[in-house]
Amino acid sequence: MTNIAVIGLGSMGYGMASSCLRAGHQVWGVDLNTAAVDRFVSAGGQSAALPGDLHAVSVVVLNAPQTEAVLFGDDGVVAKLTPGAVVLGHATVPPAFARDMAARCAAVGVHYLDAPISGGAAKAASGELSIMASGTAEAFAAAQPVLDATAATVFELGDAAGAGSAMKAVNQLLAGVHIAAMAEALTFGMTQGVAPDKFVEVISKCAGTSWMLENRAPHIVAGDYTPLSQVNIWPKDLGIVLDIARDAKFSAPITAAAMQQFLAAAGMGLGGEDDAAVAKVYARNAGLALPGED
Amino acid sequence: MTNIAVIGLGSMGYGMASSCLRAGHQVWGVDLNTAAVDRFVSAGGQSAALPGDLHAVSVVVLNAPQTEAVLFGDDGVVAKLTPGAVVLGHATVPPAFARDMAARCAAVGVHYLDAPISGGAAKAASGELSIMASGTAEAFAAAQPVLDATAATVFELGDAAGAGSAMKAVNQLLAGVHIAAMAEALTFGMTQGVAPDKFVEVISKCAGTSWMLENRAPHIVAGDYTPLSQVNIWPKDLGIVLDIARDAKFSAPITAAAMQQFLAAAGMGLGGEDDAAVAKVYARNAGLALPGED
Repeated sequence: MTNIAVIGLGSMGYGMASSCLRAGHQVWGVDLNTAAVDRFVSAGGQSAALPGDLHAVSVVVLNAPQTEAVLFGDDGVVAKLTPGAVVLGHATVPPAFARDMAARCAAVGVHYLDAPISGGAAKAASGELSIMASGTAEAFAAAQPVLDATAATVFELGDAAGAGSAMKAVNQLLAGVHIAAMAEALTFGMTQGVAPDKFVEVISKCAGTSWMLENRAPHIVAGDYTPLSQVNIWPKDLGIVLDIARDAKFSAPITAAAMQQFLAAAGMGLGGEDDAAVAKVYARNAGLALPGED
Repeated sequence: MTNIAVIGLGSMGYGMASSCLRAGHQVWGVDLNTAAVDRFVSAGGQSAALPGDLHAVSVVVLNAPQTEAVLFGDDGVVAKLTPGAVVLGHATVPPAFARDMAARCAAVGVHYLDAPISGGAAKAASGELSIMASGTAEAFAAAQPVLDATAATVFELGDAAGAGSAMKAVNQLLAGVHIAAMAEALTFGMTQGVAPDKFVEVISKCAGTSWMLENRAPHIVAGDYTPLSQVNIWPKDLGIVLDIARDAKFSAPITAAAMQQFLAAAGMGLGGEDDAAVAKVYARNAGLALPGED
């Protein structure tokens, strides 16, 4: 039984905190959203001031600036930790940022595991995430109780922070491109008389399929844009990819094209919808009515 | 036992002709490449003049102009068929072209099945292709012996030619985009310290995976560009997609970006290499050495 804090009780963080509780740990939940904290306390979590003997802190916030604020800002958590504790950085961030966080934690004797997550809210809740992790052996060892409670698969990507975030950026590049490409292909098919349900039925069994196509295209067929993963994720995550790529003088034309489609979706006011709503950009441009539309 | 002609004994057509032989049919093989014809005759096929009572003609050539020449050019095969025979059009062609072929065949009492294929040379050889087919009930019935001999899966996409080719175009859009996106992500990862073998190991188990990634990325890891499917396929097939899209006033920015990368690969002299060689465009642009390169 270990003392763990989970900072950020959104759809991913709440599930991870619950998974840690279920594994028998003492878990503190922190979020600006008091309703999420109250719900977590009702489920058996703690919300009082963080104890002095925290063993692990999982940071499940939106991005790098939020991660830095949580760790090193006013009332930052690292100052409250004792040497030997571990911070797990779960947000999608640039690799260089993860290396910087690790160095600043190490300066005060705190381990840092670069640990971006993949799998969605349902797998967070069931403790079956995939985690792309890198860090020192000591960081992995200290983080083990959290990894055991939250992950079905831990990819161990090396002994230095940054490698985990690099792999996450690679994954997000493909995931974002595949969602937009699915939308492009589905709507292109509509112009040729291919019905969206037939598209899913056939292409999911052919060489043109992808994990994202099989996961997201049914949302379009159902006309259901309840946000399991929001459009707004992609200007953020593809933005990280394109920023890193620019710094590396790496030309990424397909990622850049997909980015424009997500930006157009956000510009149409669809940022809070499920990311399959990028299909509405194509439909509007081509004068098509998607399922559920008039 | 049915009399079948297979026109085009390339990697796909030879396998399909062999599958028809194996199913017990009398099969005539036609190709300008006499070595392929000789090999087919050694395997039990026929090469003499086509008989007057051909039941089915499978056309497995490169594109629409070749299909039209084979069917209606000088010495075209349709003129030799008797009413009730069926032509199977297997090349990737625009849907409007397939509709035109069907109408011209119908004018002389010949059935036409719009029947693009998917699956690669190995599945052609084993008789386990996927076929995206549309046509009249009579065309399907007449083509049944060929479909039974060559396909593991036949998607029945409607009672008119064109629907099969439309679905094939949708599949090729995604397949081409996914190959180029895989190459973009793999090389982007290299700039961030992600080794190509680690890329395949991790991403193939994550949300960023695709059928094409799992099939093609190992070629890059192995440094083996033996052409199982050539770079040259994609300027052709994505060209068909973009031509159809333009005619429909459909904006397809991701497909267009992928197209440029395949054109650059062809321009670099890589047209005859495996299509995974599109990664060399990215590697050259970013100054990276792929596996097997110095």
